[in-house]
Amino acid sequence: MIPTESWQSKVAKKQAEVKAAIPHEWLLPSTITPTSNVLNIPRQSGILSNHELDITESYNAVQLLEKLAAGIWTSAEVTEAFCKRAAIAQQLDSFNVKGVQSTIGFVSFLDHEISKTNSVLVDVLLELGAVLYVKTNIPQTLMTADSDNNIFGRTLNPNNTTLTAGGSSGGEGALVAFRGSILGVGTDIAGSIRIPSLCCGTYGFKPTSGRIPFGGQASPTLPGIPGIVPCAGPLANSMDDINLFVSSVLNAKPWLGDSNAHAVPWRQTTEFSKKTSLTIGILAEDPSFPLHPPVRRTINNAAEKLAAAGHKIVYLKYAEATSTSLGSRIAMESFTIDPSATSIQHIIASGEPKIPSVTMTLALQPPPKKYGLLELAQLNVEKFTYREAWRERFQAEELDVVVAPGAQHTAVPHDTYGEPPFTVMWNCLDYPACIIPYGRASKELDPDPVIFSPGPNYDPKLVDGAPCAIQIVAPRFQDEECLYAAKIIDQVLKSTDV
Amino acid sequence: MIPTESWQSKVAKKQAEVKAAIPHEWLLPSTITPTSNVLNIPRQSGILSNHELDITESYNAVQLLEKLAAGIWTSAEVTEAFCKRAAIAQQLDSFNVKGVQSTIGFVSFLDHEISKTNSVLVDVLLELGAVLYVKTNIPQTLMTADSDNNIFGRTLNPNNTTLTAGGSSGGEGALVAFRGSILGVGTDIAGSIRIPSLCCGTYGFKPTSGRIPFGGQASPTLPGIPGIVPCAGPLANSMDDINLFVSSVLNAKPWLGDSNAHAVPWRQTTEFSKKTSLTIGILAEDPSFPLHPPVRRTINNAAEKLAAAGHKIVYLKYAEATSTSLGSRIAMESFTIDPSATSIQHIIASGEPKIPSVTMTLALQPPPKKYGLLELAQLNVEKFTYREAWRERFQAEELDVVVAPGAQHTAVPHDTYGEPPFTVMWNCLDYPACIIPYGRASKELDPDPVIFSPGPNYDPKLVDGAPCAIQIVAPRFQDEECLYAAKIIDQVLKSTDV
Repeated sequence: MIPTESWQSKVAKKQAEVKAAIPHEWLLPSTITPTSNVLNIPRQSGILSNHELDITESYNAVQLLEKLAAGIWTSAEVTEAFCKRAAIAQQLDSFNVKGVQSTIGFVSFLDHEISKTNSVLVDVLLELGAVLYVKTNIPQTLMTADSDNNIFGRTLNPNNTTLTAGGSSGGEGALVAFRGSILGVGTDIAGSIRIPSLCCGTYGFKPTSGRIPFGGQASPTLPGIPGIVPCAGPLANSMDDINLFVSSVLNAKPWLGDSNAHAVPWRQTTEFSKKTSLTIGILAEDPSFPLHPPVRRTINNAAEKLAAAGHKIVYLKYAEATSTSLGSRIAMESFTIDPSATSIQHIIASGEPKIPSVTMTLALQPPPKKYGLLELAQLNVEKFTYREAWRERFQAEELDVVVAPGAQHTAVPHDTYGEPPFTVMWNCLDYPACIIPYGRASKELDPDPVIFSPGPNYDPKLVDGAPCAIQIVAPRFQDEECLYAAKIIDQVLKSTDV
Repeated sequence: MIPTESWQSKVAKKQAEVKAAIPHEWLLPSTITPTSNVLNIPRQSGILSNHELDITESYNAVQLLEKLAAGIWTSAEVTEAFCKRAAIAQQLDSFNVKGVQSTIGFVSFLDHEISKTNSVLVDVLLELGAVLYVKTNIPQTLMTADSDNNIFGRTLNPNNTTLTAGGSSGGEGALVAFRGSILGVGTDIAGSIRIPSLCCGTYGFKPTSGRIPFGGQASPTLPGIPGIVPCAGPLANSMDDINLFVSSVLNAKPWLGDSNAHAVPWRQTTEFSKKTSLTIGILAEDPSFPLHPPVRRTINNAAEKLAAAGHKIVYLKYAEATSTSLGSRIAMESFTIDPSATSIQHIIASGEPKIPSVTMTLALQPPPKKYGLLELAQLNVEKFTYREAWRERFQAEELDVVVAPGAQHTAVPHDTYGEPPFTVMWNCLDYPACIIPYGRASKELDPDPVIFSPGPNYDPKLVDGAPCAIQIVAPRFQDEECLYAAKIIDQVLKSTDV
């Protein structure tokens, strides 16, 4: 087939559409000159009233729902306040307003038909009364940590626009951190909910696969190809909002709309919540992935504060069988087995170039290997062995949860994120995992630059002030226990924080 | 390697071992001449006292536990009574007394080491106080409906020894029906719990995969090969005992011992059990698999009695997208994808011949096709489409459960069972499914022979008196609802039965 229109022309039309969707009175005045931290621009813009600034900055979703239920505010005024803020973010950044297509970052998908059906989760959320007012930016392919593509451009980190917002749900992470959204939804097969959360400083939760419905989504991969199962989950500014999202969706019986969703209702963690003290394992450092100084300091601080609050801390010893590198290697290998390299074909189809982050990620992948069913069976055995090793570890150490870094590093300069071993290992295990923002990178507290190979390097000045985070992990299907523990841990960390 | 001992010699030693394990005083007197129905032989043998006959014939497991708990009987006397009865069955049949090896019907496995660990389910049952006193016979390969192999021989149906006991858990089905065991465990990837149940006249339950732990079992297939996931589950003589088994195992947190078991505790079906009337779909007949007259009569009788008891009966219309043949075809195809044909290699390894039933099953399989990852992905898409079609069907018709035949026919003469479409379709869907015995084949009620192509044919005289059964099915993960509905349905059928 001869292409009748260049990819650049298709993109230009799409961008004009997106731009035209912002009302004139919501355009930023020319007097605003963005700095690297853009979080304060809504206050300076004059676009939001003081009341709208209050709505968007002072409450979490649970509290907003109380105000709405009591008739104090209307849904329309709350929605307009967040719309204004999202429109500001769009002008500083790259969010795509809810449109007619799911491009998932491929120019070739601009030729796809308009979606005729909602994803199952969208139906569930609408039925629960959610107001869906924006869709947000993601990377070309969905499989890299920079939310950059040739249609909408690059999402920047609102804490520091020289740093990545993470990916794949980078638009959502940035918008939630910007408080242009109170609650967002992402998907996660290697860290795509948790990476933007830890980069932008939001909470983010990847459930056990099949609990939150994933059905009906546009996908970059070959339908039916086996491997790690992707999950949908929330990004928010509080643990209460994460809990609100997960419990509301599970109580709405999402399995009625998606045969891949498990008919496992939200459980009250009655047994778990009787515990006055949690037993918390601290993930062992992996020699292949040493931690950047702010990340190590964050984990150590958290462990000390949790111990001081009466929780039992178990510093897990490194073992290859449960190592971060092993889980990461199994998962990363499983992403390369599609013999037709479907994702790359979607790029080639339109003639658009690969984004730099995709080029870098491909270079990090294991050398291509011809995969057949015997090799797949072998990889499945390795995955099962890894899962058994972790099950035995939880049993042997009598752990309730594990506290781990979400990444080797904080948000880093664009296109340098590298591999996601600390998120993808839990996808390999299919364990629920929750990111809690905690502290900041600091050139005063960690003043010495460190070279890492492979990179990115630690440069105290570049990442100064970037959000830090910890990750709370529980065994498969113990989503309720994971969230319960995350809430307790968050309270401890926030109450004693200076 | 040169074989140092013939397969026949290894088998002869194993059989001698098994024979020697039966105490002299439990050997059947020579005055006993078995008829085709052997269920009455324990009464005639003089081996069991009247008290032991009472113990083994008049109670279900729930009632036996009450007697034991109240101190009325000792565990030793109950165990001895069942051991005697099992020993009688062994002499009429082919049960292997608990030994040191798991041969799963392969002579080549006689060379395997003695098991050093228990399967996870065995550990769970022992911890619950179960007395494990026999292991029972299965087919060579586990993948056919006749429990026949070159080590222990063939299991016969105690209702009629000219008919198959079914498979793969045929030894367990026959022993439970013989009341040589109060509660048995089988595994099911295509019907291996439910086929012996419907052939022998017991209750049998295949749960959603991953609810009852399957870990640590000897397996005939290539480790890690993807496809339909096998399930472990109970065979018993009452719904109360099926419930006892499933609820006890799930309450024992089997996921702590098996990373493939889901951490989903037993749920009280509070919402479901408020219903005074169930909506019950009756599976549409499939033109490719017409029912034998006693099976059709059984389903019709059940539907009428359930309607008379106030339940809503929905006669489902045939649709290809939810048809028995489609689910069966997808599942049967998925059993052929192992490029190394591991199961057949286990037969070849010792030089033993294939049993007739395996030869017949291989002839029924789709023509061998070279499977790669693209073909597997395509098969997965077909499976997912089938699951979506069934989910939509349950929604559209507002069904609580479906009542279906367990097979086209009742127990049939040895080595003629054919394909298992009515059991394997629910494995393809991963739906929980429960067999309830109900009525008998009757040459008076269904007097006319019918030729079926492919067979087996209906011969009223051959199968006269064979047990009939229905199958109760609920959506994936709704094991609790399936068992609750099965209990209600069983009560209706038994209370109005003449």
